[in-house]
Amino acid sequence: MIDLYTFATPNGRKVSIALEELKLPYTTHVVDISKGEQFKPEFLAINPNNKIPAIVDHDVPGGLKVFESGAILIYLAEKTGKLMPSDAVRKAEVLQWLMFQMGGVGPMFGQVNYFTRMAPQPVPLALERYRNESKRLLGVMNRHLSSHDYFAAEYSIADVALYPWVAAFKNVLPDAFASLSGVAQWLERVGARPAVQKGMKVPDIQR
Amino acid sequence: MIDLYTFATPNGRKVSIALEELKLPYTTHVVDISKGEQFKPEFLAINPNNKIPAIVDHDVPGGLKVFESGAILIYLAEKTGKLMPSDAVRKAEVLQWLMFQMGGVGPMFGQVNYFTRMAPQPVPLALERYRNESKRLLGVMNRHLSSHDYFAAEYSIADVALYPWVAAFKNVLPDAFASLSGVAQWLERVGARPAVQKGMKVPDIQR
Repeated sequence: MIDLYTFATPNGRKVSIALEELKLPYTTHVVDISKGEQFKPEFLAINPNNKIPAIVDHDVPGGLKVFESGAILIYLAEKTGKLMPSDAVRKAEVLQWLMFQMGGVGPMFGQVNYFTRMAPQPVPLALERYRNESKRLLGVMNRHLSSHDYFAAEYSIADVALYPWVAAFKNVLPDAFASLSGVAQWLERVGARPAVQKGMKVPDIQR
Repeated sequence: MIDLYTFATPNGRKVSIALEELKLPYTTHVVDISKGEQFKPEFLAINPNNKIPAIVDHDVPGGLKVFESGAILIYLAEKTGKLMPSDAVRKAEVLQWLMFQMGGVGPMFGQVNYFTRMAPQPVPLALERYRNESKRLLGVMNRHLSSHDYFAAEYSIADVALYPWVAAFKNVLPDAFASLSGVAQWLERVGARPAVQKGMKVPDIQR
């Protein structure tokens, strides 16, 4: 059994989607980051970086704690032998797009979200910077997805990592999506998967 | 033989350090991002996301292209069986700190650097946001390194990924480092390694 510590965010949903895809039994623990629950000592003992998601895998004697959504995805894929090939060449292809999400899409889309909805005052220069970079990243994805069904040769943790970010971003920057048919078709393809639909509803709360 | 496409940046140096540590023969190709060389078609054919570093591993028939520094580090570690344990539990520990660098330290330190040295005009609110987050990340690292020699149980690609970012950041935000003895000792420990010293000088150009 796996304990999942999460909240209704794209990073949290990456892991719930993966757990649903892999049919691994898990218990969801809501860490309400809007109330600062990520700073509680019992959560910091799991992730000293005070961010969701994190897991504790009790199949490992003593309980294995893993933080960082990207690390959790690789761990779960290797635990089950699914959603990432073991062959070095095909695995590298998955990992490069997973890292593209971790180091590019997540942080940059996140900044657009912050300066659009959360900043205490408008900061046009910052908003423009992150909008431009996010549009560039969407363009990279769209060119790739115009000739590929998935980021790697097969559906993988790279798609699982990117889906909740791109799906959420449609509402933040709708104009950028107008001409992105490759991205739109990929969103439909991945969004049609029952495990994705289930994972996107974890935790089952309204923000 | 591996072709390394890189420039004098922390992300580039992660890979040159790893190649030096692993004693893998490689040829350095400078992609001068200050001149926009990352947008040349021949480089986009290797990394459609127009960022350094990228590698082509000619040990793989046809030549394997890998982009994203974090993916390259995992690929090289698994190619050689070094700098990352194969055991699932110890590997997860390495990967979570690698992802902490990829998704946190790199993007956030990068924003401080941008708003400190490159933004067309001062943007105090953005600079404050990224300075605060970077100081928080340094605090997380310092607490961990106060009781650990390395991020995981042994020296690994997590240290390789974090070293060039933290080392460079000492000059960007010197005041934040004053009280960070755990980080300071780790910087000395890692910086004393001959492979790190060699890798930090690749490519051998002044910016």
